[in-house]
Amino acid sequence: MCELLGMSANTPTDICFSFTGLMQRGGHTGPHRDGWGIAFYEGKGLREFHDPNPGCSSEIAQLVQRHPIKSQIVISHIRQANSGRVCPENTHPFRRELWGRYWSYAHNGQLKGSRELKMEGSFQPVGTTDSERAFCWIMNHLQQRFPKPPRSKTLWRYIRTLCDQLRERGVFNMLLSDSRDLGCYCTTKLCWITRRAPFKEASLKDTELCVDFEKETTPNDIVTVIATDPLTTDEEWTHLKPGDMLVFRDGLVV
Amino acid sequence: MCELLGMSANTPTDICFSFTGLMQRGGHTGPHRDGWGIAFYEGKGLREFHDPNPGCSSEIAQLVQRHPIKSQIVISHIRQANSGRVCPENTHPFRRELWGRYWSYAHNGQLKGSRELKMEGSFQPVGTTDSERAFCWIMNHLQQRFPKPPRSKTLWRYIRTLCDQLRERGVFNMLLSDSRDLGCYCTTKLCWITRRAPFKEASLKDTELCVDFEKETTPNDIVTVIATDPLTTDEEWTHLKPGDMLVFRDGLVV
Repeated sequence: MCELLGMSANTPTDICFSFTGLMQRGGHTGPHRDGWGIAFYEGKGLREFHDPNPGCSSEIAQLVQRHPIKSQIVISHIRQANSGRVCPENTHPFRRELWGRYWSYAHNGQLKGSRELKMEGSFQPVGTTDSERAFCWIMNHLQQRFPKPPRSKTLWRYIRTLCDQLRERGVFNMLLSDSRDLGCYCTTKLCWITRRAPFKEASLKDTELCVDFEKETTPNDIVTVIATDPLTTDEEWTHLKPGDMLVFRDGLVV
Repeated sequence: MCELLGMSANTPTDICFSFTGLMQRGGHTGPHRDGWGIAFYEGKGLREFHDPNPGCSSEIAQLVQRHPIKSQIVISHIRQANSGRVCPENTHPFRRELWGRYWSYAHNGQLKGSRELKMEGSFQPVGTTDSERAFCWIMNHLQQRFPKPPRSKTLWRYIRTLCDQLRERGVFNMLLSDSRDLGCYCTTKLCWITRRAPFKEASLKDTELCVDFEKETTPNDIVTVIATDPLTTDEEWTHLKPGDMLVFRDGLVV
């Protein structure tokens, strides 16, 4: 299995604190040693870091932890390989372009018979994971159904029906973004928390690190963090139910 | 204008030495302060680092200089913006997927009337540069012409005719790869050198750094480096002529 981390914020925000917690699970407090990746949207641009090495000992992960990249949407993933060998092309998040937008995607779970997902369209997987195959299957369906980008509500309603189909094949916890919204689909494990004024302190579960968000933010900031398992011990995370889909924009559910 | 750097090798090789030279030109020995990027192919996978900050002072660039990533094909770019503002989505190299392969592309030059390049196909630019527009134009033509991937020779012959058309709009020095070959097209400035046994020492032009390739390589290694301007002072670089296109695989011209 794997773990997911996502962020949606109404102002460019760094994710150093949460990412530091997640990386511990990449071989230290968790068994997810088979690579990690993170994608930062900066406006329409998408900046990514990938490493097939364990997150807990990765020099690149250490840079990302101490180098605050400000972003409104982030998707991150640590991998414990089950489908597809450990190599760069199998390292999440995956990226494609559609309608002049970069799409980023990461998946936690396992899909049975993913080979049966027909690649009818121009998007083809590069690696060998069931995850990337499911992503290309979604992208091909979007491209066929909407020659031009639809309204956000129509788009995510349709994506939900696609996720419902994938869910029939097994475990499909997913984060997906088109650079505007962050969609989160849950079949087994996904939880979230929204931080806004009055901000408090929070302590990581996986390493001794505490942050006082009051000092790091302005009163108008709204920052939502989504994760497979709660990353902090002193905050209340909301758990999604199987089949739930939430779409965030600017840190709020839309 | 901008500067390009490319590598093709017959064995996974790091590009730390050449990249260190190039980064000096990103605001120190050269005026290319408007971001930089580098793409490493590792098998079919593509790992990228981008930064809209100047290369000479970028913390991410420093990591790439000291962290040897072994690759057989590399494309790098430092930018001096002329078309499109300085932001992540305008930072080369650009990436798209076609036929289950990642394509990476960087461009040096300026194209007149790039808006006239019709985007007939599914590839659309995300940013606002003439460079990315030309890349999407090439990708759309490839997709329309070849529903399935053709033989390498047929592919690059066709890409050459596309480059010849782009050249009519101005300066089009380009590096392009489909994860198998590295194509280099020259209209004004591009040069290359192939290093193979017996290896010698080389000194960077832009900073005091010397390397003895004899110690870094095995006798079977073949490594070709392509750059806008020669990166070393004590080697003989071959200059491409306007309209020249070279395609490298495993460090050799094919």
